[in-house]
Amino acid sequence: MSSTGDGIPFEKAEYARRIALVKEEMERREMDTLLISEPSNICYLTGYEAWSFYVFQVLVVHRDLDEPIWIGRFMDAISVQRMTHLTANAIRPYSDDYVQSAERDPVDFLVAQLREVCPTLKAIGVETGAYYYSARTHTKLVSSLPNVRFLDAELLVNWIRIRKSPAEVAIMREAGAISDAMIKDAVEAANPAMRECDLAAVVYNRMIAGTPEYGGVYASSPPYVLTGTRSAEPHAPWSDRVIGTSTPINLETSACRRRYHAPLSRTIFLGSPPDSYIRLADAVVEGIEAALEKVKPGVTCADVERTWQNTIARHGLHKEARLGYSIGIGFPPTWGERTASLRSSDQTVLEAGMAFHMMPGLWLGDVGVTITQSFVVTESGREDLTTYPRRLVIKQ
Amino acid sequence: MSSTGDGIPFEKAEYARRIALVKEEMERREMDTLLISEPSNICYLTGYEAWSFYVFQVLVVHRDLDEPIWIGRFMDAISVQRMTHLTANAIRPYSDDYVQSAERDPVDFLVAQLREVCPTLKAIGVETGAYYYSARTHTKLVSSLPNVRFLDAELLVNWIRIRKSPAEVAIMREAGAISDAMIKDAVEAANPAMRECDLAAVVYNRMIAGTPEYGGVYASSPPYVLTGTRSAEPHAPWSDRVIGTSTPINLETSACRRRYHAPLSRTIFLGSPPDSYIRLADAVVEGIEAALEKVKPGVTCADVERTWQNTIARHGLHKEARLGYSIGIGFPPTWGERTASLRSSDQTVLEAGMAFHMMPGLWLGDVGVTITQSFVVTESGREDLTTYPRRLVIKQ
Repeated sequence: MSSTGDGIPFEKAEYARRIALVKEEMERREMDTLLISEPSNICYLTGYEAWSFYVFQVLVVHRDLDEPIWIGRFMDAISVQRMTHLTANAIRPYSDDYVQSAERDPVDFLVAQLREVCPTLKAIGVETGAYYYSARTHTKLVSSLPNVRFLDAELLVNWIRIRKSPAEVAIMREAGAISDAMIKDAVEAANPAMRECDLAAVVYNRMIAGTPEYGGVYASSPPYVLTGTRSAEPHAPWSDRVIGTSTPINLETSACRRRYHAPLSRTIFLGSPPDSYIRLADAVVEGIEAALEKVKPGVTCADVERTWQNTIARHGLHKEARLGYSIGIGFPPTWGERTASLRSSDQTVLEAGMAFHMMPGLWLGDVGVTITQSFVVTESGREDLTTYPRRLVIKQ
Repeated sequence: MSSTGDGIPFEKAEYARRIALVKEEMERREMDTLLISEPSNICYLTGYEAWSFYVFQVLVVHRDLDEPIWIGRFMDAISVQRMTHLTANAIRPYSDDYVQSAERDPVDFLVAQLREVCPTLKAIGVETGAYYYSARTHTKLVSSLPNVRFLDAELLVNWIRIRKSPAEVAIMREAGAISDAMIKDAVEAANPAMRECDLAAVVYNRMIAGTPEYGGVYASSPPYVLTGTRSAEPHAPWSDRVIGTSTPINLETSACRRRYHAPLSRTIFLGSPPDSYIRLADAVVEGIEAALEKVKPGVTCADVERTWQNTIARHGLHKEARLGYSIGIGFPPTWGERTASLRSSDQTVLEAGMAFHMMPGLWLGDVGVTITQSFVVTESGREDLTTYPRRLVIKQ
């Protein structure tokens, strides 16, 4: 089973199932209307995946309406029509003079549409922490609808997204195949005489071209290509610098297929690593293997993380940052779902269909090692989404 | 003059000049403290360009403090230290258990830091429309500081960024050289038998590798590679589909250098375009040439747009969307500065140092033509940031 890389990614019934789950949760919270700003959540409920979230855009789910209503810029309406099962009545664009304008505010347009289309407007849920729902929009909306109760629906859809259907897992496997090819290409290409940007270009080339079977698309974060002392900087861009010898290269990447991600990070060491560095890498591998073994339904995120910490503690090591996070659909700026984290305070119980990127990384002074694994929880344990060996890659 | 592509992009004096401009504006607005969430504005005032804005991050400018204060995640502090002139005292990270956590809120950390570091806290400006300043953050912040007056500082820094220094223009020229190479590579590679994703990969490869002189980095939006009927969808991703013959390919791209952009779009027609299509392209070229001729200090954005509309009106054409927008530093999701637009309602007066992407595009039913130009306004007129000929590219 594989996706086509074109057209609407899932059948209408799959979207109907997802919307029903959202409506159930809305009912539980006594919410008649839900405004969705997070592009990943809009994509999850409709299939829409165009880059239009940099202007005002909202998906309205009302408990008494069969389909959600998309509100966005006029020029993007045609993409909504082609990328989703929404009918013409559910696509309601505003004109271009609302865009980044001091004169007109798209929130006024939204309010007029809500009054027209929603059978009731009693309690509206909004995603207060979403990247593309601004403080200004919220303030204006609340003041424009004085008799409406506003509820915080932050992460409401994200927590539904955490359980993937078999059709979603199938697409994540395709993303995983591209991620494997990205790391493979990078390992083959990496050499001390090349610039960091040239190695990054190799990674991008594969991310976008994909494989002969599955084309790729931009991931929600850039890959990180971190060499030498910069390997201690987790989110720095690459530079024009020549990579040089005797250096670790931390590659943190993900391919993307129909907005689904399967991240994969490896460290390539160019030259002969010092013994202390090899011991560090061995500890990471020991830790990740132990933590992965722990994964199965019924275990908590905290349990998995504790196994990792206990294993590396035997080597006198500790990692402050979380060990991983839930993955699936993503739009910039992150491919994480922002729900469950593999950390000591997270009591989320693993269930079949949940997917995570386990990303152990350890630093020794200025240099680090990162060897990660994306997986889906299955009925009996886990399925890995990538197959690249979990080990430090040494390239002489 | 060229940038090195590594290290801090500008001298300390350049950042001091920018911060002084911000403080002047703060004084005018009777604001003692300014919280900056927009990554482009943080980069403008410090040089910081890591991908850490997907978690809580703020730059604090206080009128009585010499340097701004960065507040962000602990693991990113090292990048701030290396990428900026900030001293250790001005780098104030929070621990990892604040990240995407139900238990701890980084706004509490921010408030504690503000109380500790700011000599006064009377009137705080916040960027209410910034992508990474959420409704939740704003609500929490306002309730945590009940005796403080909150002012809307949306676009305050953006409007200062609109005038580029010669050092900034020098970097934009480098971005322009890479943009030219991206389109050149795409024109050479495009053929009917390739998949859309493979053409997108060619564009990305050059964006990231850059030229032998200047390495590239990810732009703030993906390139658009829109073929056939999809050329009517301005922000759709490419697919696995084979491009085919007798089709226009709208390529909308930008290179990026030290976060500065110089966008460039061209339409490539594979095969022999119908006469109606050639006339459409001719109208776009005539319109853009006339509008570009109009550019000089003292003219308004509306004047430039009117020239375009008047010119294409002679061919019975009209474009609803704005003709262009201010460009410079950008982070996802947009390389636009979100200030001046080339549109009839925008009375912004052009000044030397302002930079724009003029992006005329016209559609005829399902197919469109886009031929664009990025430029900087000079004392006497304009300087183009790219040199690729402004014409429809026909490839038989």
